[in-house]
Amino acid sequence: MEKSNETFEVTYHISANSLSDAESVSEKIGVEQSVEMPLSALPGSAKKSLPETLLVSQIDDDRWKIVLSFPLQLVEGDANQFLNVLYGNISLYKGIKIVDISNSILENLFNGPSFGIEGIRNMAGIKKRPLSCTALKPVGLSPHELAERAYQFAMGGIDIIKDDHGLANQSSAGFKERVISCAEAIKRAKDKTGKRTLFFPNITTSAKDIFHNFELAIEAGADGVLVSPQLSGLSVLWDLAARAECPVMAHPAFSGAYVSSQNSGFTLDVFYGKLWRSMGADAIIYPNAGGRFPFSEDECLSLHKTCISDLCEFLQSFPVPAGGIQLSSIKKWIEFYGTETLFLVGGSLYTQKKGIKSAAEQFQKILVDYE
Amino acid sequence: MEKSNETFEVTYHISANSLSDAESVSEKIGVEQSVEMPLSALPGSAKKSLPETLLVSQIDDDRWKIVLSFPLQLVEGDANQFLNVLYGNISLYKGIKIVDISNSILENLFNGPSFGIEGIRNMAGIKKRPLSCTALKPVGLSPHELAERAYQFAMGGIDIIKDDHGLANQSSAGFKERVISCAEAIKRAKDKTGKRTLFFPNITTSAKDIFHNFELAIEAGADGVLVSPQLSGLSVLWDLAARAECPVMAHPAFSGAYVSSQNSGFTLDVFYGKLWRSMGADAIIYPNAGGRFPFSEDECLSLHKTCISDLCEFLQSFPVPAGGIQLSSIKKWIEFYGTETLFLVGGSLYTQKKGIKSAAEQFQKILVDYE
Repeated sequence: MEKSNETFEVTYHISANSLSDAESVSEKIGVEQSVEMPLSALPGSAKKSLPETLLVSQIDDDRWKIVLSFPLQLVEGDANQFLNVLYGNISLYKGIKIVDISNSILENLFNGPSFGIEGIRNMAGIKKRPLSCTALKPVGLSPHELAERAYQFAMGGIDIIKDDHGLANQSSAGFKERVISCAEAIKRAKDKTGKRTLFFPNITTSAKDIFHNFELAIEAGADGVLVSPQLSGLSVLWDLAARAECPVMAHPAFSGAYVSSQNSGFTLDVFYGKLWRSMGADAIIYPNAGGRFPFSEDECLSLHKTCISDLCEFLQSFPVPAGGIQLSSIKKWIEFYGTETLFLVGGSLYTQKKGIKSAAEQFQKILVDYE
Repeated sequence: MEKSNETFEVTYHISANSLSDAESVSEKIGVEQSVEMPLSALPGSAKKSLPETLLVSQIDDDRWKIVLSFPLQLVEGDANQFLNVLYGNISLYKGIKIVDISNSILENLFNGPSFGIEGIRNMAGIKKRPLSCTALKPVGLSPHELAERAYQFAMGGIDIIKDDHGLANQSSAGFKERVISCAEAIKRAKDKTGKRTLFFPNITTSAKDIFHNFELAIEAGADGVLVSPQLSGLSVLWDLAARAECPVMAHPAFSGAYVSSQNSGFTLDVFYGKLWRSMGADAIIYPNAGGRFPFSEDECLSLHKTCISDLCEFLQSFPVPAGGIQLSSIKKWIEFYGTETLFLVGGSLYTQKKGIKSAAEQFQKILVDYE
């Protein structure tokens, strides 16, 4: 689909009643996302800013696939301006869904993950098998109580412990004290078991303060960080990736509006897979099918594939299915996704009768069969 | 609806089939947005983190209104964490729409606009009448061509000229050169006419670089700035407002996913009105009814009211209806909204046969009747 280095392509599914209606929607999108003015008043010297329709084809009674080719000069080195051309004003329309983006523009603007699957595997010392991850929670516990949970999980052998994305800087457990306590507890467990557990605290806050949190986390001994890019600002993701100091795990909080509508927004794999991987997420948490969130197995599998398949020579992002995975169904999901998967199991570990250390041991026991 | 200073309330419309179903959705939202774990495993010391359902009431066959009261301690001073509690994980659900937020939490976290309607009126020297605004475009023109357009608009008496939100740092008109040229052209017009036209260039870029753009803009003589908060990161909005150096006009690019679904996301007035005004937008551009975007007159009027009515003793934000307003319909919209309105007319001015200076004069002629 690549046309030349001077353009990039976006593929949409749109609502339309006929070929001419679909062509008209395509032209509207093109104008709205570039010159944003009536073509009758467009000066000749700005005609080069207009995208070109490459394809209009019917999918269904009232849905059409269209492909627009945009001049690269609309964007030129500014990833935020690319997001604007991609979905700025048309985010306010109904019935437009972005289903693909040409790799050329992702390659042009982004560098992908700095650690990726291989980097995280190396840090954790795990070659082939799927990895385990759990979430420290709930909000309201003291740093001591959270650290005790981290210790139990680490003693049970969990590969990665991340903070719940709702742990911020609450007075029940201030950011710095909490991160220091938990990192120390996890290190203490490692000294006993010899098994390394990685710690990814949640650093999400305003774009201005997040790098301060990042530095505190690294200083306290964090191995990676958790961030909700749609809360802190998407550019924070590529700025963190550019530092390349530790892996970044991305959380979908506040981003669901972009992917949860049938006929508008983005497909799950374009938004979290193509975009977030390109922007530098080393691990990508997503709402798994069959849990608390309304996404299908097909959507999730397609996203998983986009995280690990060839894309612009970017490193692979670890796909992290989450949101209600039961310990009892892990085997099923390994068969479904394969071993390049980082399973995030929270609630199901907390509800095991023999406690969380034993729950973590059960989790690991399932995974080691795949090494 | 305020319960105490220790809690804040959020009102939702949700999909449910019965009272017990609605109660169950309410509990799910409460758990998802706070402790995010099965209640059976919740330790006693974290029970204080759970929100409480204050109301469950039927609106329609399958839609219900619910009100949840959240402990303030979930948020404590971190506005990003407030956005997370408000709409973090439930952004991934279907059928949940946020229709109100209690003022107490907005007051607690935000300071509102630093200039507001009064500040912008003072700068423009206009007491009572509605204000005019237009957009410099299209992308692809040179700084000289854009500056010539700015000059013509200013000679015609436009009150505020903002950049098109698609003008970034393209090689056709690099940011710095473009802003300097346009600011200079507008000043030149003022020297001739004596009438002040305010210039709001678009500074939108990554969270890391936007303050650099901001400083360049101020240095070049900008009177205010245009920013797309959902592209740069919402926190950029309150950080810019906190500097209080010039008014900030907020543009809805990339934010439509939050407001364009009938049954999920936010109402137009809660998102742009309550949130963006609280976060510090001095002027709020929104997609007007009857233009290119699919919002109703009721939705737009309700948003307009939220911008100018009493809210936490915040200054008023100038409501800026846009997106296809015709010069010929300005009078109708003044009757509809009243005079506390900043009308953004772009395309319709560019298509007037006698040129843009004459179009601007026509625009002003309509408005001066309301002084």
